[in-house]
Amino acid sequence: MNPETAWIQKEIVLTPKPRGFHLITGEVLSALPELADFQVGIAHFFIQHTSASLAINENVEPEVRADLESHFDRLVPEGAAYYTHTYEGPDDMPAHIKAVLIGASLSIPITRGRLNLGTWQGIYLCEHRRRGGARRLVVTLHGQRTKNGGKE
Amino acid sequence: MNPETAWIQKEIVLTPKPRGFHLITGEVLSALPELADFQVGIAHFFIQHTSASLAINENVEPEVRADLESHFDRLVPEGAAYYTHTYEGPDDMPAHIKAVLIGASLSIPITRGRLNLGTWQGIYLCEHRRRGGARRLVVTLHGQRTKNGGKE
Amino acid sequence: MNPETAWIQKEIVLTPKPRGFHLITGEVLSALPELADFQVGIAHFFIQHTSASLAINENVEPEVRADLESHFDRLVPEGAAYYTHTYEGPDDMPAHIKAVLIGASLSIPITRGRLNLGTWQGIYLCEHRRRGGARRLVVTLHGQRTKNGGKE
Repeated sequence: MNPETAWIQKEIVLTPKPRGFHLITGEVLSALPELADFQVGIAHFFIQHTSASLAINENVEPEVRADLESHFDRLVPEGAAYYTHTYEGPDDMPAHIKAVLIGASLSIPITRGRLNLGTWQGIYLCEHRRRGGARRLVVTLHGQRTKNGGKE
Repeated sequence: MNPETAWIQKEIVLTPKPRGFHLITGEVLSALPELADFQVGIAHFFIQHTSASLAINENVEPEVRADLESHFDRLVPEGAAYYTHTYEGPDDMPAHIKAVLIGASLSIPITRGRLNLGTWQGIYLCEHRRRGGARRLVVTLHGQRTKNGGKE
Repeated sequence: MNPETAWIQKEIVLTPKPRGFHLITGEVLSALPELADFQVGIAHFFIQHTSASLAINENVEPEVRADLESHFDRLVPEGAAYYTHTYEGPDDMPAHIKAVLIGASLSIPITRGRLNLGTWQGIYLCEHRRRGGARRLVVTLHGQRTKNGGKE
């Protein structure tokens, strides 16, 4: 017989960050001590905003995050002549477009009490506004808690 | 002891829509009365097509959706000289590229019987073809149904 | 009473592939005989790398995959003047950007023992490096194994 699936859901409020790509693996993990109880499962992260997004990428070199910001700024420029939604500021419509391109959620496997990320992978908050404020995540952990995990 | 995880899976066929970004939160929710029974869980939406996609973004201003369409049309233009897959029409290859950029699925947390979207978030059908027809979604709800939800 | 949720998690190591978009549905399915036991569920695929990604798109025409490669190569060019992370080669920083645009994971519904993909959908490995080597996926299957599946 399989063990039951446990569910944990909580909100995490991130500290405010300037526009750019920010590594938040540590900030997120420190808010999720419950992870250690799961032998196998999925951790789901959902950002409740339309002008910021979540991504997974390189967790060491700050140049990678700076170049991501430079590139997205060119891919989705401020002040394009065809924007009609302009009254919330020049960084607003580009922020919505970047959020659609990158996405609002992440799903990461849990294995033996840890996020099963690759060696070079970290979690990014992609902040697309100049003053986005404190961003809110809904985190949902679900999986098996027993020692024999998904193996049968 | 935890309550069991319940699973509900169903197909939703959306009404046909013209090319563009369309808010479908209401259309989708009206097909999912079962959501109300879940205290905590994940709602997973999967579009079974390669030339349309699903996204989450701003749920009030129609200008945001119009500007998204304008921008994606420039990011992935029709008639690029390097396209070789052209015999299904000028909007076909750009549609495949946009679908890869935006993605075929969404996962949204369920909390106390509702999708736990942020105040300004809605679900978009991103229709990349001029005549895409009725798009089909596979929706999978899974989570706990009891009153004490994910709290322990 | 509902049947329990079963969890299976395993690693798949893909054969090395050259830069480009590759259809891997067959390679992945042949490594997942356990799928047949699930009546309803979700199959989650996670790539443990920051310079390759996973996508779902057209599963027949090789021209679609070639045009995707051509387009992404223009959308995220090598040798942009503003890249500062350049010492790992000209294809490295573009690879990170493409990986953020496309994403590291896929979630696909399972229905009666099979991935419930649309007729024209297949799973892509998007290899963004010239010599990316053997890419590793963590696959997590979860769902109900009994015959009556998600229907109650």
